[in-house]
Amino acid sequence: MEKIILTGDRPTGRLHIGHYVGSLRRRVELQNSGEYDKIFIMIADAQALTDNFDNPEKIRQNIIEVALDYLSAGLDPAKSTLFVQSQIPELTELTFFYSNLVTVSRLQRNPTVKNEIKLRNFEASIPVGFFNYPISQAADITAFKATTVPVGEDQLPMIEQTREIVRKFNSIYDEVLVEPDVLLPENEACCRLPGTDGGQKMSKSLGNCIYLADTEADVKKKIMSMYTDPTHIQISDPGHVEGNTVFTYLDAFSKPGHFEEYLPEYANLQELKDHYTRGGLGDVKIKKFLNNIMQEELSPIRARRAEYEKDIPAVYEILRKGSETAREAAAQTMAEVKRAMRINYFEDAELIKSQSQKYAEK
Amino acid sequence: MEKIILTGDRPTGRLHIGHYVGSLRRRVELQNSGEYDKIFIMIADAQALTDNFDNPEKIRQNIIEVALDYLSAGLDPAKSTLFVQSQIPELTELTFFYSNLVTVSRLQRNPTVKNEIKLRNFEASIPVGFFNYPISQAADITAFKATTVPVGEDQLPMIEQTREIVRKFNSIYDEVLVEPDVLLPENEACCRLPGTDGGQKMSKSLGNCIYLADTEADVKKKIMSMYTDPTHIQISDPGHVEGNTVFTYLDAFSKPGHFEEYLPEYANLQELKDHYTRGGLGDVKIKKFLNNIMQEELSPIRARRAEYEKDIPAVYEILRKGSETAREAAAQTMAEVKRAMRINYFEDAELIKSQSQKYAEK
Repeated sequence: MEKIILTGDRPTGRLHIGHYVGSLRRRVELQNSGEYDKIFIMIADAQALTDNFDNPEKIRQNIIEVALDYLSAGLDPAKSTLFVQSQIPELTELTFFYSNLVTVSRLQRNPTVKNEIKLRNFEASIPVGFFNYPISQAADITAFKATTVPVGEDQLPMIEQTREIVRKFNSIYDEVLVEPDVLLPENEACCRLPGTDGGQKMSKSLGNCIYLADTEADVKKKIMSMYTDPTHIQISDPGHVEGNTVFTYLDAFSKPGHFEEYLPEYANLQELKDHYTRGGLGDVKIKKFLNNIMQEELSPIRARRAEYEKDIPAVYEILRKGSETAREAAAQTMAEVKRAMRINYFEDAELIKSQSQKYAEK
Repeated sequence: MEKIILTGDRPTGRLHIGHYVGSLRRRVELQNSGEYDKIFIMIADAQALTDNFDNPEKIRQNIIEVALDYLSAGLDPAKSTLFVQSQIPELTELTFFYSNLVTVSRLQRNPTVKNEIKLRNFEASIPVGFFNYPISQAADITAFKATTVPVGEDQLPMIEQTREIVRKFNSIYDEVLVEPDVLLPENEACCRLPGTDGGQKMSKSLGNCIYLADTEADVKKKIMSMYTDPTHIQISDPGHVEGNTVFTYLDAFSKPGHFEEYLPEYANLQELKDHYTRGGLGDVKIKKFLNNIMQEELSPIRARRAEYEKDIPAVYEILRKGSETAREAAAQTMAEVKRAMRINYFEDAELIKSQSQKYAEK
């Protein structure tokens, strides 16, 4: 069986380094590993519209931003199919038919949905489209017969819903759909990168994100004013590493080689942490170190972005072509689904023949 | 503005005379009135699958039955577009986007949905597809820009839901969708034709239906054993007209001319009712009268059916062509909907140009 990945992002803003370490960096690694036959990366505009339906302009303007972030992070249209969800009508058709296989109470029990409803303060006024999201996600995954879905642990209930739909469809109709496996992140620290202000989550509205598209100067400024340890006032004071954003970022980004290059007086991150904990190590020093690391990671991304930004129509063309490729794959699955459900009446010669015979014999 | 009708039936079995007097007969009149620019008649297989998902074969086999009933009742493919719902993927796409405009609690308050849930003993295990039905129906109606939906009073909350969606869509995005009007039946008696056993509803499983496809002998047999008035034992006994199935059917089917032809000793239905009420009129006599009327109504239908049954592939071809026509109309609306939502990115020259300029100026 082919190994196929499906993953993606909601185009509600530029991608930040939280997205990068949480998923994007890994995607590029998976793409370049050569282990996967097909990789589909979806810009989930239709999904984003379920809770931004009154502001489609936001989604519309951010599609190109996410595409630029993808390409500059190293996703390669020759290896990965980058596409826009709303351009694949088969996804809504699958969602429609899968909706028959899931009960309302099953959706209500979905912990991810429950949590998102809470986060968005929806309460009784959840849009139906948002409530149906797990079904729509099952359509996205199965349309491409994805075997592998790289997600964080918080998304496990969503994937379990997909697996349930696949099993139910295959048992009622025919063995057409593929049950996907989850690919969890290797490094847990990467999944929960806090905001630069130490807040739990990076959020555009809080202004605590470092974006992939940020300039060198912006990144430096954000790092130099980053939240550390409020009890670490004098350099000589003992400091805390836990909950210290600079160290959380170092956990996610620093590699052994970085010490040799930028901070040779320490052998590794543990030594640095130990010194900070016992006192005598200033914040400016660790911030400068982090800045060096981040600039090293982000500068090739920035350079690629600058190249792609020179020809925006070409980026739209990449998405258009990717959407065409994705649509062919989804249409193929859709045809199999209709055949399995036997609702392909007009190409069903056997049906027409048997009905003709029934009436001829009358 | 064009006057456009959208209506249809779920293909869960042959149509009976309840369907005929409740909607089909009127549809033929509307079709032949020349007052409507377009008439779309939908065989709602996708809708029927929402609560028959585990028995698609039932739906599959009944599509041709409903089509034969339509054609034999007098629907004319040259005047009305007969089509199969599942063959129009745009309907699922519209359903998907409209789902963002309706809240879960709004659906829960829909009296028609509440009632159907009760009828089907769904309780907590309602399939999501079934729960979403009012949204899907809004897609069916608006895809064809229907101005007129002929329905019974029980369907009013459904049409109100469609009107709400239309208003919300048009106010958020652009004036694309048409708010439909309801066309209620002229004759209330027609809408609630009881079963031949006097039961409230005709139902295949109760075996109390007279089908449009029934033979002359079958119709006669069913009428002659019809439920009348259990207290009317001797001919001389006073009889009850209320709740007497034969009289309910006479209310729905008899016309002044029928008396002159089949029962000249009575001037009209009221005289017949009066005689029955005061006693001295036997059930056999009124049943024979009803049978004459029913045979007169059904025999041309039966004759047309026999003709169509001779060439079943031609009937499928009528549906295939109708579905093609319907799909063109729905695709046209879908394109307008996407343009209004501004999610037609790749044909949106202005978007690509403005994004190019933004980056050129950077």
